[in-house]
Amino acid sequence: MMKETNFSKPLPLTQVQVTDAFWKKEMELVRTEVIPYQWNALNDKVSGAAPSYCMRNYRRAGEIQREKKEKGSAFVPMKYPLDTFETVPGKDGKMDGRFYGFVFQDSDFSKWIEAVAYSLAQHPDPELEKTADEAIAVVCAAQREDGYLDTYYLINDEDQIFSNLKDNHELYCFGHLTEGAVAYYQATGKDQLLHAAMRYADFILEQFGTEEGKKPGYPGHEIAEMALMRLYDLTDEEKYLNLAKYFVNQRGQKPYYFDLERGETCEEGEVKYAYNQAHLPVRLQREAVGHAVRAVYLYSGMADVARATADDELFAACETLWDNIVNQKMYITGGIGATHLGEAFSFGYDLPNDTAYAETCASIGLVFFARRMLEIQAKSKYADVMETALYNGILSGMALDGKSFFYVNPLEVLPEACHKDERKFHVKPIRQKWFGCACCPPNLARLISSIASYAFTEKEDTLFLHLYMGGTLEVEANKEHARMEIQSGFPWDGHVTFTCKNDLRKPYTVAFRLPGWSSVYEKQIPSGTMAEEKDGYLYLTRVWKSGDQVCLFFPMEVRLMASNPLVRENTGRLAVTRGPVVYCMEEADNGKNLHLLELNSCGKARAFETDEMGEHFVRIYMEGRRIVPADSDRQSLYHVSNAMNYEEAALSFLPYYMWNNRGEGEMQVWVRAYQR
Amino acid sequence: MMKETNFSKPLPLTQVQVTDAFWKKEMELVRTEVIPYQWNALNDKVSGAAPSYCMRNYRRAGEIQREKKEKGSAFVPMKYPLDTFETVPGKDGKMDGRFYGFVFQDSDFSKWIEAVAYSLAQHPDPELEKTADEAIAVVCAAQREDGYLDTYYLINDEDQIFSNLKDNHELYCFGHLTEGAVAYYQATGKDQLLHAAMRYADFILEQFGTEEGKKPGYPGHEIAEMALMRLYDLTDEEKYLNLAKYFVNQRGQKPYYFDLERGETCEEGEVKYAYNQAHLPVRLQREAVGHAVRAVYLYSGMADVARATADDELFAACETLWDNIVNQKMYITGGIGATHLGEAFSFGYDLPNDTAYAETCASIGLVFFARRMLEIQAKSKYADVMETALYNGILSGMALDGKSFFYVNPLEVLPEACHKDERKFHVKPIRQKWFGCACCPPNLARLISSIASYAFTEKEDTLFLHLYMGGTLEVEANKEHARMEIQSGFPWDGHVTFTCKNDLRKPYTVAFRLPGWSSVYEKQIPSGTMAEEKDGYLYLTRVWKSGDQVCLFFPMEVRLMASNPLVRENTGRLAVTRGPVVYCMEEADNGKNLHLLELNSCGKARAFETDEMGEHFVRIYMEGRRIVPADSDRQSLYHVSNAMNYEEAALSFLPYYMWNNRGEGEMQVWVRAYQR
Repeated sequence: MMKETNFSKPLPLTQVQVTDAFWKKEMELVRTEVIPYQWNALNDKVSGAAPSYCMRNYRRAGEIQREKKEKGSAFVPMKYPLDTFETVPGKDGKMDGRFYGFVFQDSDFSKWIEAVAYSLAQHPDPELEKTADEAIAVVCAAQREDGYLDTYYLINDEDQIFSNLKDNHELYCFGHLTEGAVAYYQATGKDQLLHAAMRYADFILEQFGTEEGKKPGYPGHEIAEMALMRLYDLTDEEKYLNLAKYFVNQRGQKPYYFDLERGETCEEGEVKYAYNQAHLPVRLQREAVGHAVRAVYLYSGMADVARATADDELFAACETLWDNIVNQKMYITGGIGATHLGEAFSFGYDLPNDTAYAETCASIGLVFFARRMLEIQAKSKYADVMETALYNGILSGMALDGKSFFYVNPLEVLPEACHKDERKFHVKPIRQKWFGCACCPPNLARLISSIASYAFTEKEDTLFLHLYMGGTLEVEANKEHARMEIQSGFPWDGHVTFTCKNDLRKPYTVAFRLPGWSSVYEKQIPSGTMAEEKDGYLYLTRVWKSGDQVCLFFPMEVRLMASNPLVRENTGRLAVTRGPVVYCMEEADNGKNLHLLELNSCGKARAFETDEMGEHFVRIYMEGRRIVPADSDRQSLYHVSNAMNYEEAALSFLPYYMWNNRGEGEMQVWVRAYQR
Repeated sequence: MMKETNFSKPLPLTQVQVTDAFWKKEMELVRTEVIPYQWNALNDKVSGAAPSYCMRNYRRAGEIQREKKEKGSAFVPMKYPLDTFETVPGKDGKMDGRFYGFVFQDSDFSKWIEAVAYSLAQHPDPELEKTADEAIAVVCAAQREDGYLDTYYLINDEDQIFSNLKDNHELYCFGHLTEGAVAYYQATGKDQLLHAAMRYADFILEQFGTEEGKKPGYPGHEIAEMALMRLYDLTDEEKYLNLAKYFVNQRGQKPYYFDLERGETCEEGEVKYAYNQAHLPVRLQREAVGHAVRAVYLYSGMADVARATADDELFAACETLWDNIVNQKMYITGGIGATHLGEAFSFGYDLPNDTAYAETCASIGLVFFARRMLEIQAKSKYADVMETALYNGILSGMALDGKSFFYVNPLEVLPEACHKDERKFHVKPIRQKWFGCACCPPNLARLISSIASYAFTEKEDTLFLHLYMGGTLEVEANKEHARMEIQSGFPWDGHVTFTCKNDLRKPYTVAFRLPGWSSVYEKQIPSGTMAEEKDGYLYLTRVWKSGDQVCLFFPMEVRLMASNPLVRENTGRLAVTRGPVVYCMEEADNGKNLHLLELNSCGKARAFETDEMGEHFVRIYMEGRRIVPADSDRQSLYHVSNAMNYEEAALSFLPYYMWNNRGEGEMQVWVRAYQR
């Protein structure tokens, strides 16, 4: 049985100051590079990048609202056809009054404002805040009297709003708008956007439901579920919880809404709507399927609803789906979505390295899901996955200079194949500046700027440290104000120091995660502390006094990892990890033809701290060998096998997230291994 | 320099009687199963299979011709739109006067009649011949007065003939018709179809060329080139050679005809038309690219033209393309076309086993190409590839009972992936009954029934034995009639006995191929024979007398084959071969999870003759081991590697062509290997 008293909630960002060397650098990149770039992008001011049209669409929709007010009911806006998923100007470059860009282009603003909010919470910036306020004014001016706010329909044809939930992303845009609005309110206290989001939510409430006269619909691309739960957590308004609950519970019920809305029956609904996780009621879903980003966004919303309603059955569904992902469908980097066809999960244990999709956004969604599971149950298995995804499959999405991005995060790359083999065209051999469909860069921006809300959650009597990062925290410890300081060498060094900076009067618990990658650890704790290990956390309870210090040390040994025997691609191969970091070989360090290199599974590992590419990190050298083919073996395509000729080779490994910062080249995570 | 006196030509099928145990069985399957089935298929009489509409279309076109004759110029046929590649009846199943099926459906008849012709040459069958004659009458009745004969345009819209050479297969259908017509004439002496083909060729001659008023076009799907050369070789009419030469030389010239015919310029022509091998003039093509079947059909036509015109430059282009295929782009089974996207060649050394396309028809085209290269230069490297393709990647296309077929011939299969992973949907885990697009089964039928014309070629003073198969041959040895008999245990036993059955008066040479897979061989030859080894052939010259016998023995050792180090998929893997036969492991013999099995590269091989599945063959057992994962390794997706636990396992190998005759199951050709 779920107990509400066990639930924790993220520490508000305004109560955390991140000082961590590793994460502070990432956050600064987002603040100084990504957010300004993104603002230019959504104002179509990035030369060479596809225009977003985002702010232009809001302005255009705002004009229509103004005209309506001025001209009253006499005014009938021009209509434009809805039949394109993306509208671009004709060859002459001329634009008319219609909506431009992808149908979900509104969300560009929302993701940006959310990242801005988190950044402002950590790093006040009056000029940025002014820009944000002005943008918010533009957005709010586009809102219809009744609360509706999606510029695609407002501009092109208002009569058709909510007519294609499956494909047209209205509720997705609503979700992002709401997340951005909540974040901006929490960071700045300003509520203009929040009120816009609430008015839109109220409008949606009137439209959807199983009651007579309402549409029994739900989002084609999930996110509204978690957004509504943020609104509920902030406002305590039951109606938002009820809408989220409705979206979750109605999903996948028969007759399929996606059939109803197009007035036809899709005989293969169970297969077809699996892409949207709408093939079955969510409580009956036992396998993670379909579009990976949508899936983990849904599961995150399900976990939110399960928590808020203490719904054991729904939580059990979340656990089943979590286990299915983590035990059968996740790359060692925390990447999910093994096929580019539908950007989707493949079947269990099908984890090809070179054709992986492993979208940055999907791993980000997995972090959302993990944090929500942690809120319900502090089990380190959730935090372990969150940490893996963060340090590997997510950070790999951004170049070290914050200026280019990967959507797709493969675990093995041969650039020639990316250029010549259409089956791998989705795998880019080099990060891209920006994308027309700009989901991953802004998603990275909002995640990184809010990283502390994933690291720390609290409930009345307990502070949870899920991730280790340096910073100062202000917490309410049993309603007493407390200040804590954390120092950490993660992810390169396993030392963590926790210091209480003021005196408390009542016992308070701090729960330290014991990372799954460290089978042993050392601890120094103040005498008289009550210590308990449970579910992968070390619970330390005492009446904390200023200067009380806890020192933990998690040895970061180089670990050679193997896959489950059912992962065919990795049979006979090992991956190198150290602490939370997954490593890879790059051509720049090991030469061409990485496939000819083999790792001695009994060899010694040497790990060195180093500074390269502007990054302080640990490089690893492993004992290995290189196949040296005989000249005759190179003449023909096939030859009678002969004893293999090897030369010794020290294999050089780099953190996976750092790959591809030195131009195009081969890369490999899983390396063929031998025992000697 | 090419010398015409060195050229050989295939032995006419009417002069060979195949008695070979192996091939006779295959030919009987074609005669008793495939040809009757195919006839039913092209008359839409196979329940459960997509109708071909082939004979129906010929009848419909015939009606139109009859009406034209009856009504004269007053008659204007109804027109139908041309915009579909495949036309099927509506949901009510009702058909109107339009053309049905794929645009290339006419070729179903032509492939069938060609197979029938070869079968009749070996095995007279008055009833089958009567059926064939009646079908020919139907086809010829559809021909227009001026010789044009393609029912798609005759039925739908005559005004648009030759308006879409790139996609609409008119010249492809012409090519097949001509091949069938030549074969039927050669087998039966009946010339009705031959005359129809010649009239059609004459019509095409008037339409195409670089002269004013003609279209400077060429086939979108090649085959007309080799068909015209068969017509030329039969009739000695220069005009057919000239048309073939024109098609070959005009191909890929700028401006691109495929641009011209649609009145637009395709900026990416060089990339786009690579699919059709029309991106460059053929003499400048150095890499085999695009649709694999089209490619080898073109190269076959090029070789034909090079031979007939003693064109060194063109022959050099053929050699370059041959080498490119064989040294970089061919599976060990003789399969070609590594990607299903465009059914095409991938880049060099990219030979994935589980997503291979390796279409049966492409390997058949490779055999066409090989035989034509052999005609020009008797080098065993061509015959080696021909033999490999025949015994492996081609025969695998047909079930042992001749009742079901593969288009795609992968080298590794996990049935679950074929069902669940869209990237492998082209890989069928079980042979199919028949296909709407029926290219591979009838192509197999015509190849197998004419197998002797690939085994044996002759020139005035020499008989070439490229493949070993039992049979009797009637040859013109320096204008003397000679009868020869061959006995062979191929592909299971390397003994070959050649016997001359009558006395000759002049010296005559018989050239025996020395297979590349056998580094040594034994020979017994009549004393006084002049023996010379050259280019992988043993030339034996003597004045042969009745009873003169040559006995050769090519030891068929089990050979473990490795790939070129640049074939990434096969690094650390070996394939088992014996003689010309490539072997594979099947789940039916080795259990599930073939990827956990490893082959001892130093182990002993045991080969046993056996009879299973109605087939006499050699099964091979190899020493090996099976990874036995610890229970803990199965719990999670990733774990710290530990010393691998193995159990000894005898790996059982079956000839590749025999795979998948015992239901769905895993299969693997390239097996991970270890040295012990």
